[in-house]
Amino acid sequence: MLAELRGLNEECGVFGIWGHEDAAQLSYYGLHALQHRGQEGAGIVTKNGKGLHVVKGEGLVNDVFSGDALKTLTGRAGIGQVRYTTEEGRGAENVQPLVFRSMTGSLAIAHNGNLVNAKDLKESLEKQGSIFQTTSDTEVLAHLIKRSSGGSLTQRDRVKKALSMLKGAFAFVILTEDGLLVAQDPNGLRPLSLGKLGDAWVVASETCAFDLIGAETIRSVEPGELIVINDKGLHSDRFAEPADRAICSMEYVYFSRPDSDIDGINIHMARKRCGKQLAREVNIEADVVTGVPDSSISAAIGFSEESGIPYELGLIKNRYVGRTFIQPTQAMRERGVKMKLSPVHQVVEGKRVVMVDDSIVRGTTSRRIVKMLREAGAKEVHVVIAAPPLVSPCFYGVDISTDSELIATGRSVDEVRELIDADSLTFLSAEGMLKAIGRPAEMKNCGQCLACFTGEYPTEIYADTVLPHEKEIGR
Amino acid sequence: MLAELRGLNEECGVFGIWGHEDAAQLSYYGLHALQHRGQEGAGIVTKNGKGLHVVKGEGLVNDVFSGDALKTLTGRAGIGQVRYTTEEGRGAENVQPLVFRSMTGSLAIAHNGNLVNAKDLKESLEKQGSIFQTTSDTEVLAHLIKRSSGGSLTQRDRVKKALSMLKGAFAFVILTEDGLLVAQDPNGLRPLSLGKLGDAWVVASETCAFDLIGAETIRSVEPGELIVINDKGLHSDRFAEPADRAICSMEYVYFSRPDSDIDGINIHMARKRCGKQLAREVNIEADVVTGVPDSSISAAIGFSEESGIPYELGLIKNRYVGRTFIQPTQAMRERGVKMKLSPVHQVVEGKRVVMVDDSIVRGTTSRRIVKMLREAGAKEVHVVIAAPPLVSPCFYGVDISTDSELIATGRSVDEVRELIDADSLTFLSAEGMLKAIGRPAEMKNCGQCLACFTGEYPTEIYADTVLPHEKEIGR
Amino acid sequence: MLAELRGLNEECGVFGIWGHEDAAQLSYYGLHALQHRGQEGAGIVTKNGKGLHVVKGEGLVNDVFSGDALKTLTGRAGIGQVRYTTEEGRGAENVQPLVFRSMTGSLAIAHNGNLVNAKDLKESLEKQGSIFQTTSDTEVLAHLIKRSSGGSLTQRDRVKKALSMLKGAFAFVILTEDGLLVAQDPNGLRPLSLGKLGDAWVVASETCAFDLIGAETIRSVEPGELIVINDKGLHSDRFAEPADRAICSMEYVYFSRPDSDIDGINIHMARKRCGKQLAREVNIEADVVTGVPDSSISAAIGFSEESGIPYELGLIKNRYVGRTFIQPTQAMRERGVKMKLSPVHQVVEGKRVVMVDDSIVRGTTSRRIVKMLREAGAKEVHVVIAAPPLVSPCFYGVDISTDSELIATGRSVDEVRELIDADSLTFLSAEGMLKAIGRPAEMKNCGQCLACFTGEYPTEIYADTVLPHEKEIGR
Amino acid sequence: MLAELRGLNEECGVFGIWGHEDAAQLSYYGLHALQHRGQEGAGIVTKNGKGLHVVKGEGLVNDVFSGDALKTLTGRAGIGQVRYTTEEGRGAENVQPLVFRSMTGSLAIAHNGNLVNAKDLKESLEKQGSIFQTTSDTEVLAHLIKRSSGGSLTQRDRVKKALSMLKGAFAFVILTEDGLLVAQDPNGLRPLSLGKLGDAWVVASETCAFDLIGAETIRSVEPGELIVINDKGLHSDRFAEPADRAICSMEYVYFSRPDSDIDGINIHMARKRCGKQLAREVNIEADVVTGVPDSSISAAIGFSEESGIPYELGLIKNRYVGRTFIQPTQAMRERGVKMKLSPVHQVVEGKRVVMVDDSIVRGTTSRRIVKMLREAGAKEVHVVIAAPPLVSPCFYGVDISTDSELIATGRSVDEVRELIDADSLTFLSAEGMLKAIGRPAEMKNCGQCLACFTGEYPTEIYADTVLPHEKEIGR
Repeated sequence: MLAELRGLNEECGVFGIWGHEDAAQLSYYGLHALQHRGQEGAGIVTKNGKGLHVVKGEGLVNDVFSGDALKTLTGRAGIGQVRYTTEEGRGAENVQPLVFRSMTGSLAIAHNGNLVNAKDLKESLEKQGSIFQTTSDTEVLAHLIKRSSGGSLTQRDRVKKALSMLKGAFAFVILTEDGLLVAQDPNGLRPLSLGKLGDAWVVASETCAFDLIGAETIRSVEPGELIVINDKGLHSDRFAEPADRAICSMEYVYFSRPDSDIDGINIHMARKRCGKQLAREVNIEADVVTGVPDSSISAAIGFSEESGIPYELGLIKNRYVGRTFIQPTQAMRERGVKMKLSPVHQVVEGKRVVMVDDSIVRGTTSRRIVKMLREAGAKEVHVVIAAPPLVSPCFYGVDISTDSELIATGRSVDEVRELIDADSLTFLSAEGMLKAIGRPAEMKNCGQCLACFTGEYPTEIYADTVLPHEKEIGR
Repeated sequence: MLAELRGLNEECGVFGIWGHEDAAQLSYYGLHALQHRGQEGAGIVTKNGKGLHVVKGEGLVNDVFSGDALKTLTGRAGIGQVRYTTEEGRGAENVQPLVFRSMTGSLAIAHNGNLVNAKDLKESLEKQGSIFQTTSDTEVLAHLIKRSSGGSLTQRDRVKKALSMLKGAFAFVILTEDGLLVAQDPNGLRPLSLGKLGDAWVVASETCAFDLIGAETIRSVEPGELIVINDKGLHSDRFAEPADRAICSMEYVYFSRPDSDIDGINIHMARKRCGKQLAREVNIEADVVTGVPDSSISAAIGFSEESGIPYELGLIKNRYVGRTFIQPTQAMRERGVKMKLSPVHQVVEGKRVVMVDDSIVRGTTSRRIVKMLREAGAKEVHVVIAAPPLVSPCFYGVDISTDSELIATGRSVDEVRELIDADSLTFLSAEGMLKAIGRPAEMKNCGQCLACFTGEYPTEIYADTVLPHEKEIGR
Repeated sequence: MLAELRGLNEECGVFGIWGHEDAAQLSYYGLHALQHRGQEGAGIVTKNGKGLHVVKGEGLVNDVFSGDALKTLTGRAGIGQVRYTTEEGRGAENVQPLVFRSMTGSLAIAHNGNLVNAKDLKESLEKQGSIFQTTSDTEVLAHLIKRSSGGSLTQRDRVKKALSMLKGAFAFVILTEDGLLVAQDPNGLRPLSLGKLGDAWVVASETCAFDLIGAETIRSVEPGELIVINDKGLHSDRFAEPADRAICSMEYVYFSRPDSDIDGINIHMARKRCGKQLAREVNIEADVVTGVPDSSISAAIGFSEESGIPYELGLIKNRYVGRTFIQPTQAMRERGVKMKLSPVHQVVEGKRVVMVDDSIVRGTTSRRIVKMLREAGAKEVHVVIAAPPLVSPCFYGVDISTDSELIATGRSVDEVRELIDADSLTFLSAEGMLKAIGRPAEMKNCGQCLACFTGEYPTEIYADTVLPHEKEIGR
Repeated sequence: MLAELRGLNEECGVFGIWGHEDAAQLSYYGLHALQHRGQEGAGIVTKNGKGLHVVKGEGLVNDVFSGDALKTLTGRAGIGQVRYTTEEGRGAENVQPLVFRSMTGSLAIAHNGNLVNAKDLKESLEKQGSIFQTTSDTEVLAHLIKRSSGGSLTQRDRVKKALSMLKGAFAFVILTEDGLLVAQDPNGLRPLSLGKLGDAWVVASETCAFDLIGAETIRSVEPGELIVINDKGLHSDRFAEPADRAICSMEYVYFSRPDSDIDGINIHMARKRCGKQLAREVNIEADVVTGVPDSSISAAIGFSEESGIPYELGLIKNRYVGRTFIQPTQAMRERGVKMKLSPVHQVVEGKRVVMVDDSIVRGTTSRRIVKMLREAGAKEVHVVIAAPPLVSPCFYGVDISTDSELIATGRSVDEVRELIDADSLTFLSAEGMLKAIGRPAEMKNCGQCLACFTGEYPTEIYADTVLPHEKEIGR
């Protein structure tokens, strides 16, 4: 489905590089490849012999780094982030990487994920005298590192001690004046890959960033692993015992780019297999298969191939929809989704249409697309979703808000079908999805997090765990 | 193929509306739907009881009409244009619609096409004392109308007389204080459709503009027709006898949006049939079919369906590439096309790939994509083009520059294949294309212009006919 | 008085240069020095061997020529204009220089002034088939030049013939591919000076432009003179017999910069002498003299010097008031003029204040300043104006709108005094002003235009002569 | 002298308001009046029942608060700051007010001044685990307040305890959810005034802010005073015993607006008296007196009045010089200061000119102005400075950099005269300046800081006290 059409957003994407003379520019390209993970803000911090340099701002990577912005980012190491921000207006101060300066050395941190014990940690830190200037979890880590400075601890040990106090989903890239540190939570909830470009090391949320800059993918960062990269090379350490691997299923289903791989599995191929599996699980008499662009195209191709029903471009995405879009008149507003998506009349007219999508969140968009297809002449509209129903909120960095906003929570499939006015509605089974994605069957849930589909969370959840979009400390 | 990746550009798209209280806003949406036809400039002129109001500027529709710009465009009638400009810096004064003010009433004109006798007409007009302020053909029409003002001629007759002097390709929408005038050249070279939205009349270069605003498509404007719309209704007139219908083939092959129809034929379906026909004309042993996004996807689907070779997303388009893109380092530049297009490794690795595209212009981009697929692991790359080779320049408003820039001019298919380093190269036959598109077989060339494929032009071509991008009067 | 505080605006300033390798940059600096003559738009056209190059836009000189704009303006000759536009929104197409392209050579024109027979000329030209794209008088000249192209006329003769048909106030700089042409109306109503920078010739509305670029002032352009500058040198010609010299008095009183000279008379010194003369014509018992910044400071200094009453900064101008100023609350709005002007309490508290200004237009601003001084503690406020009362509209390019807007029209000085709530009000006599400025006494009105003070116009005025801000042809 | 022409910059201006429904808008106007104290950044924080709201950014007040920015700043209390930043690029994160969020309530701080023990305090705080995100002294105060939270201390007591640890110059306005806190350092080094607007309390760096919004000036904030304003009213407290009053002399001489009062003494009048005193201390035969605009005009008027030499506008300031000014050619660059300042030829030609200025920093600008006056024809140029020579750096918030940059350090007056090529050079004596300004004679140095003139600092100076522009912690 179209990212713009629903409230389902990734929190961000991170990138890091060590040991390349074009560190800033490669970070820029890396963030560009990760742009789909966050369009609200972007930032890069580089390190040269004299300290850390930062450029960040609200907007797309291209906007933030226009003109000569990159030129000020000298040095052979850098980290960057693209960001999705939940609430308007609070963004500027939260754009990452965050930089923390100190007499004994500066620190920059970029983060993807969400901590479930952030509130507890903040309360405890504030009692010890810490002051928070942002509402982000990233700042919690910085304070914990600072506080861990007791005795003869090395910097790496301090970071390990701090990381070990965090609960939830996190992928951190940290740039200090001595090295690049990379950490993944014990469940490995968010994707984070390690690569190499000549002698330089690179890390990124998705491998598509490596492809763009010509780097080679080496492996995923391991759950509970702390990688320290400095001029002596790469050293793998551990700040926690690995828990059950639980990589976010929605990365396969929706977030990641089709050309990225996670743990060696290509996203497009995984989605196509989900589409095929779906075709095996359902039996629909229909004339054409169409996918809701962009993320459902792969599944639609797979569904078509398996079912033998021809694949068509029944829905076209408008490439020029931007932020500054002028408010439509009431008449236009009712046409709603049309500004972003157009039906191809002659494809659907008089036809029984299979509309493949990857998820239904609130249902409003699905209902509108179904309506649009019917108005364009579709005789029947069969909605098939290449994933199980979303029924539970995510506490790990995906903006699936609350139960009450999810149309499938507490409703039967048929009730949902009626609300979106489809002739039939089918969700892929959880087992089917796991099998189709094809991760190791010996792991629990094949090493995937299914929390949004099942309500079973791989980590502890605290009474006061808050969803990302609800965070705002100090009122 | 990607529009950004080659020098193949449509000159513009036009829109008009008469009799609706939201004339400006609907024009805005109409232009938005036509945005793919020109991204360099946009403008709207509306008419209220007190005269013509104009807002125009360089950039995308969203940029030009940001803020309160639309609010100044009051009135119940409007015309608009989106524009592609060939040379940087000369754009501002050429952005359309052009407005011509006079004591006896003002006139606004928007134009899509290119006149082949513009230079002759300008010379003659200048000799009579006319002054030109732009380099556009549109101004020629305005002067001819003004000059035709002899004796007792009505305005309509003056416009007819002026139009009858024009040779070449043109689709005009003209707004006066009395009415909306719409004219199509005698060969009907450029698309122009008539629609209805409630009681209001609308015209647009493509029917996708009607779909977006909820209007109904009525018919194409006829070759040689002058439609006059005013408060008394619509009146169809004729300024010239219709010549052989010769609608631009590249509209079907490349320019128009997949959800538009031209003369009742849907673009996506036409392209898909071209892909199928291509599959019939060639015999390739391969593992996957992939299309070069966006315009070749339809043909790729058709090719896959007919050939039985599975269709895959072998190439992903980067949606965030913008104008302000920072200059890459030399190392990055060599990776070239990668910023805009990414291969999906696991799709092509070790595979024999059929890469479907809609055209080859200079060949450089094709060569890069082939190379990119090979670097991603493709075992073989078979390029199939869902149209005949481009061998001749276009004088009718498409920026296919000169013979010497076209790789296929004076080269055999195998020579081109070698230059782009493909394992095989196949073009669709002209007959196959005409058949697949499916226009009336009884018409000459099925009513299509094949000039860029054959060098046979449907109109006279003058010794001094100049290509659009070469125009610059008065030095 | 403050330009921003009243409706008294100069139409524009012009600049030209021939024969210097930095033509564009020197034009930019020249326009910068003339910025006070027009803040709404700016443009420069240069000529190299290949034609004319133009950059123009709405806004200040610095805004229009930001970034690399100047780099595109190659060549050794250029003209430019800064412009004040009366009505918002119509500006873009009227920004000058206007460029007229033709097969036989292009032409760019910049203009300062206002034609009184523009409407007649336009009607006549339209009847002959001319089309107007702007509402400016400049376009009339271009058409007349084009129309004069009969027989064996040289370009210079055509320009002379065209100029001879114009009535009113005009200072033209014209750039063709062969030369720079400079013309002044037969009465010499608007200032225009000729200078030299090394071997290059320069022209400008005011000599302060010469000072900035280091050029030497040679002389004023003569009434009725056409100067032709080309690679052979400068040639002075004549398109009309000179009429009585009638340079705009308001240039001395208000518009021109204090460091400019007109006909060898320095503006600051002329104003200071007006202040002295005023002190001789009136007898006020007072404690301090203060001027309304910026234009009345010189007269205030003179008044103080002659009267012996100490000169003080009683009013401070806020330098940071810009266009984007946020709308004040009602409470703030009532404080009105305070955003732009602040009283210095300790200067005026308990004092009898002489407030020197250069003009009263509508009277609202004067009343507010008087009120502000009283609120700051002034015991008495005596307003003295270093010019006669404005009673008649200007048809020569100054936006003194209509009789009805001028507070002094049809009112006695005492009635005006009462309306602005001053303790006394004194205007400088016309004779006193002429004497103080010090132009040749043997000329009629010392060679000055006094129309706005007396209603006697130096040129014919037609029944349909329109004021600049009322111009809008063809509705 | 022109602020833009030398490296002498105020650090900032602050504003605060409590108890007015238009708090944000009045803060905006207040900052506008203080704009001359800092043009690099601006910010406002308001408080409504639900927390603190912040808008800030780089640029002028008008730029930062364009559009709807003010609308988000709801509430009846607000603080704001305008800021001068020493180094480009580090600005964004340092723009004030800074906001510190905490579980127990948020805090916003705006600051004018410079701490001399900042480095010590930071080191100590970091050792206790504090993390700094900016390089500003303001953050030090926030951490000290947070750290003071031991036991049963009230918020006011915590603030007092924190303030008592600070050494140097500081004027703080602090907004919490419970009140507005205002503090002045024990020497009262920076100006800070208290006023009233109806029932609302206001504070500002200068009284001109009160005049603009129509508020009444009540008194200066006392050295060592902490004012707490909340819904119960205003309560004056004390965090330190007052030391010798030592208000910055440069506020009288150069920084403050002529219409502001400090401790009841009007700036313009003080400067005029300095000019008079200077005329008494020197004996120059000359024809005209001219001041270097803007800040030296008052002194020049005084000098003229006392000496009897006529005051003239010998130098005109260009009002349109902006940031985006295009780089001049080499030839233009040599003309240097001319872009900002123009001589009036006829005023100085053949004359013996007294040029009054308020300070000489590096001497380069003075030398250029002298040269410009000579080139304009001045026969003699006598430079008189209405203050003593600047010889020592300032540690209290004025960017008078280091000894080595000050031309007068270690040079005799005649050596300086020779370097700036003046015919004579005279500085006002320190005693003359103190007498002319007219503060209480019974106080030490009349209650003024003379450090930059004498090198005697009113506070301790630490070995590691750093100048504002050298601050950058943790590299």
